Amino acid sequence: MQRVKCTIRYDGTNFYGFQVQPNKRTVQLEVENALQKMHNELIRIIPSGRTDTGVHAVGQVIHFDSPLTIDEKGWKKALTSLLPSDIQIVDVKKVEDSFHARYDVQQKEYRYRIHNFSERDIFRRNYVCYVPELLHIDKMEEACTYLKGTHDFTSFSSAKSTVKGDKIRTLYDVRCLKEGNDIVIRVVGSGFLYNMVRIIAGTLIEIGKGKRLPEDIQPIIEGKDRSLAGKTAPPQGLYLWHVSYNEDFTNIKYK
Amino acid sequence: MQRVKCTIRYDGTNFYGFQVQPNKRTVQLEVENALQKMHNELIRIIPSGRTDTGVHAVGQVIHFDSPLTIDEKGWKKALTSLLPSDIQIVDVKKVEDSFHARYDVQQKEYRYRIHNFSERDIFRRNYVCYVPELLHIDKMEEACTYLKGTHDFTSFSSAKSTVKGDKIRTLYDVRCLKEGNDIVIRVVGSGFLYNMVRIIAGTLIEIGKGKRLPEDIQPIIEGKDRSLAGKTAPPQGLYLWHVSYNEDFTNIKYK
Repeated sequence: MQRVKCTIRYDGTNFYGFQVQPNKRTVQLEVENALQKMHNELIRIIPSGRTDTGVHAVGQVIHFDSPLTIDEKGWKKALTSLLPSDIQIVDVKKVEDSFHARYDVQQKEYRYRIHNFSERDIFRRNYVCYVPELLHIDKMEEACTYLKGTHDFTSFSSAKSTVKGDKIRTLYDVRCLKEGNDIVIRVVGSGFLYNMVRIIAGTLIEIGKGKRLPEDIQPIIEGKDRSLAGKTAPPQGLYLWHVSYNEDFTNIKYK
Repeated sequence: MQRVKCTIRYDGTNFYGFQVQPNKRTVQLEVENALQKMHNELIRIIPSGRTDTGVHAVGQVIHFDSPLTIDEKGWKKALTSLLPSDIQIVDVKKVEDSFHARYDVQQKEYRYRIHNFSERDIFRRNYVCYVPELLHIDKMEEACTYLKGTHDFTSFSSAKSTVKGDKIRTLYDVRCLKEGNDIVIRVVGSGFLYNMVRIIAGTLIEIGKGKRLPEDIQPIIEGKDRSLAGKTAPPQGLYLWHVSYNEDFTNIKYK
């Protein structure tokens, strides 16, 4: 058996998220269908983590075990030919059996894209969060500095979350970038709670509108209460951008 | 009865083109459904022309007649609230009864967007034509000069076309614009034959690849034979960009 690490990109628009659900089109279902065609048996895949309905991935990472002897280029070609047009194989690497796509995550990067313009762009309605009111990016940037670091992010976690253990996470980098009429929120962290990036984005949007102040972030964090933070921003602006692992496992240099 | 001229934008991805067809989701069906909700009766719409499955519109124009007395802002608001998210109302104007969205067209502008890069962009798979081979835009621009002007465009018209009358059309402007890694073909003309812009785009792509020479356009036009021109480029790169009318009818200044 060979463990295979695979970096995949997907347009989340027409998926009911990543994880298999009865009678729903999911990313896991499509990837496992492609693998089943190659193996004539079910090959389970393990992702770095799930993504929700409508959420996109630029660099999701999965692993699986296969009895087939195919080189890395061959894997990429075979899977590409078997997958639908909204899933793309970015990279395939053969890895040690000890590699695990979820347990070995070192850090993850998410990006949240806001289209901040007076007019809606219907051609990007599934790829951005549309905010017509002018956002003050300087206020949003200031708020980012309060989010950075190690905190208990209970206030930025869905009340529906069933995560066991503490809600302390470390955000290594949180920033807002202007790209034309878009504002991109970039968040890099050790791990993320359920809906955490979307609640951060929703709160930053409210700060950008002037409904809250940048320094409000501090009491929101300290309050450890979901109701203190802003609304959960919609899924279509969210991209799982990059997942980093210890290089020893994978022999890939990350930028 | 009031004649209403309406400029609409749509993402053609999930439509079987513009025109009503049995059991198919079309733009006409959705707009007429919205009008039916307002009128409790069928209100037929007339477009400047049809668009095919997967083809987009930034500025399609339609007209219809209504017994309702609603001001232009009211029309825009009402239709916007009744239409699905992939159709947008850009502008509504009350016009003279003599205005006709198809017969009064003075010129139309189409744009064809090519993503010319080594890597496919899955998030734009429905919005561009992907060409990985490097295109020589200077050759494509040179070819455009042969297309400009008044010609018999039989060679650039679908063999399936059932158009009566001659196939002489005037192209006022044909050019290729570089936008990042995209090449946008802009075509402005008095009128267009079936698939004409997509066959022009397909032929220009072959010239950009070096498979044909810019000066080959001349014998292709003179041959009046569809088989002489290039392949029909795929629909997802095509946008009906703008339709111009005599200002007397509509009191709108076009850029």
